[in-house]
Amino acid sequence: MDHPTFKAADPQYEARVRASFGRQEMMRTLGVRITSLGPGWIELEFDHDERFTQQHGFLHAGAIAAVLDSACGYAAFSLMPDDAAVLTVEYKINLLKPASHDRYKATGIVVRSGRTLTVCRGQIEPDSGEPIAIMTGTLATVTGTSIQH
Amino acid sequence: MDHPTFKAADPQYEARVRASFGRQEMMRTLGVRITSLGPGWIELEFDHDERFTQQHGFLHAGAIAAVLDSACGYAAFSLMPDDAAVLTVEYKINLLKPASHDRYKATGIVVRSGRTLTVCRGQIEPDSGEPIAIMTGTLATVTGTSIQH
Amino acid sequence: MDHPTFKAADPQYEARVRASFGRQEMMRTLGVRITSLGPGWIELEFDHDERFTQQHGFLHAGAIAAVLDSACGYAAFSLMPDDAAVLTVEYKINLLKPASHDRYKATGIVVRSGRTLTVCRGQIEPDSGEPIAIMTGTLATVTGTSIQH
Amino acid sequence: MDHPTFKAADPQYEARVRASFGRQEMMRTLGVRITSLGPGWIELEFDHDERFTQQHGFLHAGAIAAVLDSACGYAAFSLMPDDAAVLTVEYKINLLKPASHDRYKATGIVVRSGRTLTVCRGQIEPDSGEPIAIMTGTLATVTGTSIQH
Repeated sequence: MDHPTFKAADPQYEARVRASFGRQEMMRTLGVRITSLGPGWIELEFDHDERFTQQHGFLHAGAIAAVLDSACGYAAFSLMPDDAAVLTVEYKINLLKPASHDRYKATGIVVRSGRTLTVCRGQIEPDSGEPIAIMTGTLATVTGTSIQH
Repeated sequence: MDHPTFKAADPQYEARVRASFGRQEMMRTLGVRITSLGPGWIELEFDHDERFTQQHGFLHAGAIAAVLDSACGYAAFSLMPDDAAVLTVEYKINLLKPASHDRYKATGIVVRSGRTLTVCRGQIEPDSGEPIAIMTGTLATVTGTSIQH
Repeated sequence: MDHPTFKAADPQYEARVRASFGRQEMMRTLGVRITSLGPGWIELEFDHDERFTQQHGFLHAGAIAAVLDSACGYAAFSLMPDDAAVLTVEYKINLLKPASHDRYKATGIVVRSGRTLTVCRGQIEPDSGEPIAIMTGTLATVTGTSIQH
Repeated sequence: MDHPTFKAADPQYEARVRASFGRQEMMRTLGVRITSLGPGWIELEFDHDERFTQQHGFLHAGAIAAVLDSACGYAAFSLMPDDAAVLTVEYKINLLKPASHDRYKATGIVVRSGRTLTVCRGQIEPDSGEPIAIMTGTLATVTGTSIQH
């Protein structure tokens, strides 16, 4: 997916994204790394792990969704003001092919950036070959004392 | 959610569901247990686990999606013939409230059972209180030598 | 679908819903009528119409979606304050059976009512028989001078 | 959206798509025209029409969904064998901006073409400016005497 061309509201967005990503125990547990990021997009990398497989030995759709959800969330978060939190409102995922590879790349991009709501698309590809899953998600910008949307 | 009233094609459906569920390393890793099941529905239980949290300490949407995906998948699988495999085609999840509880119950039910495609709904609730997430998903019945849909 | 038990913030919600529904030219064009409504839910009725068919003579999924979108939107709108507008953020629809009947009933219910975002479910059934389509949608409450979310 | 590069199974795919599109009364009623098409993609055009508006005078999300559903459906149909029918299994739409323009272009592209299931993405843009809606949908290839999936 092509990277979008947004301007970040917060000049420190990269440090802010990396710090928040570092607090996601789920990403640490799944072994997901940030490979690159910019305003409105992020690329992640992760490896096959037997602890997260489904009944046929492929990566479980929930693991795939977790990575795509974080990809979409941090693409959105990169454009938010420095005092905002990001929450996932909803997403839809289509599983295109079995996740039977050794390593994967996940991309999240912002499609529409609004004051309250951001719409993102995500995609996961193996090291070589066709995408195995695509996501469309809605993320909320949350400010103030409550992080509940 | 009310349990649907289907008749299982395979009289051994319960053993078949439990055996397949037992092969999902992802469910073992997340600590998910089957609490009850019938033709076209299943109930699961799981606990908060710090390894699967997002940046605010709530359960990550990916963990929630993984449990709901399995709930929908095994609700569908319970109605399939004994030589069939189940694959998730797609799903959509809405996150209704932060996952900030100690224990959760997940329910998956079949809404429409077709020869090739099954549509399911899933829901996760804390021990007491309102649902925190709902899912609608499409599952494919796969037979023959290939499990690729 | 069971009707939810919410309390309307605006005691005039019924008149407000009916007035807004009456301004939807799309509903007039499709011939959709309100049959009953309450706080957080609405029931609509409409008939087969050849002008809105797809290539096999069934009702087009877009017509079905339009009715379900309005059902979800007005279920949400019934709980909103009297100066708010409702906008659809997103929805997902599953088409369960061909729309080959003479008359349909559509129901929209609120699943989660938040300050900014409302999550609804919708369902369409023929006069007798199984549901032909289900929807899950997210609606935004919009106040102030702009109705853009 | 970039057009994909598929090879059509049926050399007569263009005539087949145009003939089937011509049988969709819904597209005729909405005034939707095919502007161009190829293997795995289609572009449509349509105009604002007061008969299909919502309560604020914008085009109703159901009209937008109808056009996107047909765009996705015919993108998928273009790759199917000549004796197949296409049915929409499900779709998800995100409404990005109010539909307040005079003329729109809709694009549907195939993302993944399978034997039974095709995944498509659709997008609607005004004559100039940002997309107002995006869709991801799953379409079924149906052969034989029944067109029920």
